[in-house]
Amino acid sequence: MDRVLHALADPTRRAIVERLARGPASVSELARPLPMSLAAVVQHLQVLEASGLVNSTKVGRVRTCRLEPAGLRAAEDWLHGQRTAWERGLDRLGDLLTGDDHQGGEPR
Amino acid sequence: MDRVLHALADPTRRAIVERLARGPASVSELARPLPMSLAAVVQHLQVLEASGLVNSTKVGRVRTCRLEPAGLRAAEDWLHGQRTAWERGLDRLGDLLTGDDHQGGEPR
Repeated sequence: MDRVLHALADPTRRAIVERLARGPASVSELARPLPMSLAAVVQHLQVLEASGLVNSTKVGRVRTCRLEPAGLRAAEDWLHGQRTAWERGLDRLGDLLTGDDHQGGEPR
Repeated sequence: MDRVLHALADPTRRAIVERLARGPASVSELARPLPMSLAAVVQHLQVLEASGLVNSTKVGRVRTCRLEPAGLRAAEDWLHGQRTAWERGLDRLGDLLTGDDHQGGEPR
């Protein structure tokens, strides 16, 4: 999770993930819209591969990159869990303020 | 988004967010379960505050920290968007392989 979130904390690497989410692409296709050298793109791809978010295969002279969605899913699940825990806390606070007690059973 | 994801790429800072998702806490409450100095915890809190994920208010000698969920939500939405784009791509590939064409209108 550290590596996934670190990899995604960079706008170029997020742009690469956004492109790969639409389908596999070669390294040169990934580099074309990016305002940097091919070497810089390759370095970003190495960070993405080390995080497990991207894999690549080389056929002849063409390296094709693919998104591996498991890391995205794990990060999304963690974020969702924290946000829903926070919202449940708000609901409990609301119940306290309105005197509506979902915790108790029958009144005594 | 860069700052939010960078802030969350550290396990201590994720532990602090998990605690704050359950409700506000003082700095000393946040520090108690963490195996590090209070100064180190304060540094982590500064990164979380700079990212907008946490805010804090000081009353007397007690600083109370609260989660600000907007950054979590933005990151979750981005991750969700990429994952669903990827899944739609898989669906299109499946349609191509099975010869089921959702793109066309009536056959001619």
